[in-house]
Amino acid sequence: MIRVVIIGSGNVATSLAHGLSRRCCVAQIYSRTLSHARALAEAIGCPSATDDLNALVPDADAYIVAVSDDAIAGVITAVADNGALWLHTSGSKPIDLFKGHRSRYGVLWPMQSFSRQVVTPLDDVHFFAEANNDAALNDLMSLGHLLSQHVVVADSVMRRQLHVASVFSCNFANHMWTLAAEVLDEAGLPFEALKPLIRTTVDKLERLAPAQSQTGPAIRHDMQVIDSHLSMLDGDKRDIYELISRSIMDRNPLEENA
Amino acid sequence: MIRVVIIGSGNVATSLAHGLSRRCCVAQIYSRTLSHARALAEAIGCPSATDDLNALVPDADAYIVAVSDDAIAGVITAVADNGALWLHTSGSKPIDLFKGHRSRYGVLWPMQSFSRQVVTPLDDVHFFAEANNDAALNDLMSLGHLLSQHVVVADSVMRRQLHVASVFSCNFANHMWTLAAEVLDEAGLPFEALKPLIRTTVDKLERLAPAQSQTGPAIRHDMQVIDSHLSMLDGDKRDIYELISRSIMDRNPLEENA
Repeated sequence: MIRVVIIGSGNVATSLAHGLSRRCCVAQIYSRTLSHARALAEAIGCPSATDDLNALVPDADAYIVAVSDDAIAGVITAVADNGALWLHTSGSKPIDLFKGHRSRYGVLWPMQSFSRQVVTPLDDVHFFAEANNDAALNDLMSLGHLLSQHVVVADSVMRRQLHVASVFSCNFANHMWTLAAEVLDEAGLPFEALKPLIRTTVDKLERLAPAQSQTGPAIRHDMQVIDSHLSMLDGDKRDIYELISRSIMDRNPLEENA
Repeated sequence: MIRVVIIGSGNVATSLAHGLSRRCCVAQIYSRTLSHARALAEAIGCPSATDDLNALVPDADAYIVAVSDDAIAGVITAVADNGALWLHTSGSKPIDLFKGHRSRYGVLWPMQSFSRQVVTPLDDVHFFAEANNDAALNDLMSLGHLLSQHVVVADSVMRRQLHVASVFSCNFANHMWTLAAEVLDEAGLPFEALKPLIRTTVDKLERLAPAQSQTGPAIRHDMQVIDSHLSMLDGDKRDIYELISRSIMDRNPLEENA
């Protein structure tokens, strides 16, 4: 059975630890804060917890560095190579952080937004994998498939494109809801009123590509409604309304709607 | 039992007809296309279908004009006032379309995105009501409550604000997914990969206001990632990425994150 050490006890580390503990042996949890390492180890029935990078179990098959982006390099340089597979889980950081420090290494990035204190089930999450050679990639893919059926090879450039796409689809969609909440707040109305509409919009993604299910004044080129809405907005809400409406109109010229 | 005539057989009319037929008597369906009127009438067990505005049953309690925005005025002027409650269902059109043509009138707007050939359940939909006097408003609210528990009085100005909010939360959020799909497409990756992420983002709305659950490089003021993403984008995707990132940063100054 594969033996894995998880370095980190944050959102990603927690979800990985829970996911892996059902399919392989999580031999140890490391955290800078011993109580965090112990809590996570206990939660998944892992026998060892430590806050000392020099006390990592030396003979595990894989070491998963699931700490914040800026802390990854520090962990790598603090521990000597032991010939095992080492990987980080960041969407933004390159695989080259390991270069010169490890012989077998890679990246296994779960494209998901992890929340504090919520264990996210990983079965449906898409993982993107990259390794420094074919043998390492092979081991990395096997490890990934213990967590999810969706494991795809993706180099750093592709991972960056996926990250951009996730910013649009998650962070920016969420910001649209923030702006909508502000508009409603000015009218003294609760955000609650929009939720059925948002749910319907998301449900449509199961049947249609988003470009195919677009509705609203912009795709109809309804300038009367668009101008009326712009006259009610100011600041960045106005700029954003204008720019996105134009972006929708540009992709859907009236001729093609006819 | 209240008797209602539904004028229209499109997305909104269809969902209203199904919703109302369970709670009151839908006496007649009108459509410009007789076969459409007949199909909808048959689907809900309504005894009468017509394509002739001069053949509307004269003694119903309420007449719901659920046709496209631009066709509402034509329906109103083509039929004489019969003293009943008349209403339209548009979020964009003013109540004044009825002024001088009817004695008791109003607007009952379901804030929902209706799809073709899908009957949308209305129980959770928020309706916004406006009428020309208190008695008409009273009748209108009663009618609305047959459809949903969420019926709120809202004048044309408030309805316009709600419409703006729904454009941000539905149309513009969906466009973010269109842009994400384009980015993925350029990388040869399917949109499917983003769906777990989108679902998680939407699920968070049940527990937190969107402003509170915002994640990503912009709220962290992570200029290294933002600049790297901007360098990969061009055209309106680049402009939109920049504008929305700035909008998120402006609402979340770094001092407050500390």
